[in-house]
Amino acid sequence: MSYVRAMLGSYPGDFKLDVDAGVLAGVIKAAVDCAQACGTDTDADLSEPHLAEMVACIRLCLDCADICTATAAVLGRPVSWDNRVVRPLVEACAAICRSCGDECERHAPRHAHCRVCAESCRRCEQACGELLTIMR
Amino acid sequence: MSYVRAMLGSYPGDFKLDVDAGVLAGVIKAAVDCAQACGTDTDADLSEPHLAEMVACIRLCLDCADICTATAAVLGRPVSWDNRVVRPLVEACAAICRSCGDECERHAPRHAHCRVCAESCRRCEQACGELLTIMR
Amino acid sequence: MSYVRAMLGSYPGDFKLDVDAGVLAGVIKAAVDCAQACGTDTDADLSEPHLAEMVACIRLCLDCADICTATAAVLGRPVSWDNRVVRPLVEACAAICRSCGDECERHAPRHAHCRVCAESCRRCEQACGELLTIMR
Amino acid sequence: MSYVRAMLGSYPGDFKLDVDAGVLAGVIKAAVDCAQACGTDTDADLSEPHLAEMVACIRLCLDCADICTATAAVLGRPVSWDNRVVRPLVEACAAICRSCGDECERHAPRHAHCRVCAESCRRCEQACGELLTIMR
Repeated sequence: MSYVRAMLGSYPGDFKLDVDAGVLAGVIKAAVDCAQACGTDTDADLSEPHLAEMVACIRLCLDCADICTATAAVLGRPVSWDNRVVRPLVEACAAICRSCGDECERHAPRHAHCRVCAESCRRCEQACGELLTIMR
Repeated sequence: MSYVRAMLGSYPGDFKLDVDAGVLAGVIKAAVDCAQACGTDTDADLSEPHLAEMVACIRLCLDCADICTATAAVLGRPVSWDNRVVRPLVEACAAICRSCGDECERHAPRHAHCRVCAESCRRCEQACGELLTIMR
Repeated sequence: MSYVRAMLGSYPGDFKLDVDAGVLAGVIKAAVDCAQACGTDTDADLSEPHLAEMVACIRLCLDCADICTATAAVLGRPVSWDNRVVRPLVEACAAICRSCGDECERHAPRHAHCRVCAESCRRCEQACGELLTIMR
Repeated sequence: MSYVRAMLGSYPGDFKLDVDAGVLAGVIKAAVDCAQACGTDTDADLSEPHLAEMVACIRLCLDCADICTATAAVLGRPVSWDNRVVRPLVEACAAICRSCGDECERHAPRHAHCRVCAESCRRCEQACGELLTIMR
């Protein structure tokens, strides 16, 4: 799983995560991958001949990429963990992944790039949901 | 106010914002400025001789910069506005601006860079609060 | 000029910038503003009825926003200044601002959002050029 | 390799990359992973008792994360490929990965997080070098 687990497991001394390391690493990894997939999906969408049908997908992918990037960055520095910040941020991430995944899925039968992107959104939405559950 | 208002006011045809343009522009501008101030404050904090006292401030500034950047980006593309995404995102932004502003304020008497950064956090927190109020 | 100048002017003790503070602040401010304008221009472009004509503009705006954001962030932490990194980064920023400005200018007569965005690209390109000149 | 290869391989119709897809995917993946590792290394560095020794590492990791993120985003939308933009951007990425990798390596014997981060920087520097070679 990239370097995420290795990095989270190599903090000095007595540091203890507020949440399960595997779940946290799963969200970080899923968010980083989803941000990348959504960025490339934007580019592929813009290459489609029926552009007007892709506009909603492009917009959602742009939002999804930005929110996933910020979520991965904040969760990737877990020492300053604050539920008042993390919870709404992960909720926003789950919400945009759901919307973006839904829209990508609509295009999945015709556009392979949307099928792959939908998969990345679903995985990230699920990982965010798992984290929100154990945070309570 | 930079180009924010001019950009929001130049959408084609019949586009109508979900919220007041002035309030929206205020949040975008405040978030962009706060992200920049927090980024530079990190660098200035790392230049202080009593580093151990600055660690919490550095961590909060890093989170604040990332969340403000994402918030400004998403709000800056308002056509795809979705309260289920925008509300938690702006809540996360307000929460980190409050925490980061509180911590910067503690250092403000000794460090001018923290005083300026605290001001940028306060303005962004307030702008986010205003937006959340009119969204309901 | 936002908080940029105040932040750069409030570093502790004996810190001395590698370049003129006014020029540096000018690039940071221009890059932050250009990133914001390009982000919103993407959204406005996607709202135009003749979408196929806007595709190149959207793509350049996306690249311009990402490169401007990174450039502003790196220049905004000037203590670790390294010409081997800063020079190509600012060159990339100047190059994308030129391309994006050229494309936006083509649409400026019909689309006000592209006119404003072109202006932000030109200002950032010019600020980058000024910085590259004094960096020798 | 995450979704990078699948996304690059699913563009519509007649799209042909300017460079080898495997090399391009390798840089994107390495840059995304390096940005994540550097972000977490910042947090781990800030947890070390001998903070003054970690300051250079923190600063380089911050720059490395920002430049890697922008590089991955721009390369991840390859249709608008422009050597005048891509080359200096990838050069900047290679340069910061080298500096950050060097600094992390100095700390690697004592700090496992710096050892992992150095590895991610080395891989990204190498991938960038490979891309620059085939671009000429």
